[in-house]
Amino acid sequence: MKKIELIQNILEANSATAESNRATLDRNGCAAINVMSAPGAGKTSVILRTLDLLRPAMRVAVVEGDVSSTVDAEMVRGASDAVVQINTRSMPETCALIADMVDAALKKLPLSEIDLVIIENVGNLICPSEFDLGERLKVVISSAPEGDDKPLKYPLIFADADAVIINKSDLFPYVDFDVEKFKRSVRDLNASAPFFELSCKTGAGVAEWVDWLRSQLHGK
Amino acid sequence: MKKIELIQNILEANSATAESNRATLDRNGCAAINVMSAPGAGKTSVILRTLDLLRPAMRVAVVEGDVSSTVDAEMVRGASDAVVQINTRSMPETCALIADMVDAALKKLPLSEIDLVIIENVGNLICPSEFDLGERLKVVISSAPEGDDKPLKYPLIFADADAVIINKSDLFPYVDFDVEKFKRSVRDLNASAPFFELSCKTGAGVAEWVDWLRSQLHGK
Repeated sequence: MKKIELIQNILEANSATAESNRATLDRNGCAAINVMSAPGAGKTSVILRTLDLLRPAMRVAVVEGDVSSTVDAEMVRGASDAVVQINTRSMPETCALIADMVDAALKKLPLSEIDLVIIENVGNLICPSEFDLGERLKVVISSAPEGDDKPLKYPLIFADADAVIINKSDLFPYVDFDVEKFKRSVRDLNASAPFFELSCKTGAGVAEWVDWLRSQLHGK
Repeated sequence: MKKIELIQNILEANSATAESNRATLDRNGCAAINVMSAPGAGKTSVILRTLDLLRPAMRVAVVEGDVSSTVDAEMVRGASDAVVQINTRSMPETCALIADMVDAALKKLPLSEIDLVIIENVGNLICPSEFDLGERLKVVISSAPEGDDKPLKYPLIFADADAVIINKSDLFPYVDFDVEKFKRSVRDLNASAPFFELSCKTGAGVAEWVDWLRSQLHGK
């Protein structure tokens, strides 16, 4: 049982750091959201569209989590108020952001001048669901070409989501994706997360998502 | 350093079991391939197309790895000579197949009556790259809508691949995917893995992939 005990210790230490991150954010009048998805579902594109509508009324920083590369950080640099890149690559490769990494990133941000921190997690539908980062909201993105069976296969991340985005709705005509079946599968795991169907390519549906996000952050 | 040491022990134990799996397969005149990709890239669809061309000349079993559900196993049941489902769900969820799970699956298969075992790994571009399962070939699938930057972001899995499949080529007209850029990024990590562009929807390119696979297994 040594492995299980160790994992338990890691998760407990992570929760303590996540609470500390939350307190740091609160103290600065700031909140964080944790954006999670499979690789290539469009996390960065959703973040870029979101920054475009939230700013300049809100001041928004982005924490970019990637195993390797700075591709995403470079994309959001000009579109946000501050960016910190976290590369999780190590031996073995780390498969999710953990609260310690976010703690280090928050220390690099001018939090008193920031209203919202958008954390882009590593592309993975499994590991990120284990680690609280200190966020106020967990957002999961599924994209139409991935198929409508993802909630059945990766239940935990959908069970814990505060919102579920269906991205790449412009591809609905070309792929087999049953929106109602997808929503029913999520609803079996999660009684209340709202759904947002959108396309970062055309912009359709983006405003509804951002309006909801703004409403959740209001009065923080 | 306790965590690093423990991980080292886990990987060493995994390698030993993987070698034992390879010996078991060899002894039965059988080989395995390990099919890896992000969630929704089309592992099951590629496997179904592959089964269709390999059988009945070859007898092919499938080991289906999923965090949860038997969705994929049900899809391949009628199309293969034998199927074993592995559900990795636990607390915490397990993010990849490991050699022990494949050992248990091989014990359930009539290996002396099987020529090839296709192992469908859990949908994840990070964790599966750490664990040798006893396979002869590692196959990584990327799909066009995921974007051409995946090798930059998840280098290890591409570095170790024996073949790279670009799936959903029917979606090329509707997504931004630069095939040459993708191939260059893989080539920077991996000097020799061949590329196969195909569409499981239309069947285009599937025969080239299966011909290559057959040639690799020939004389096993």
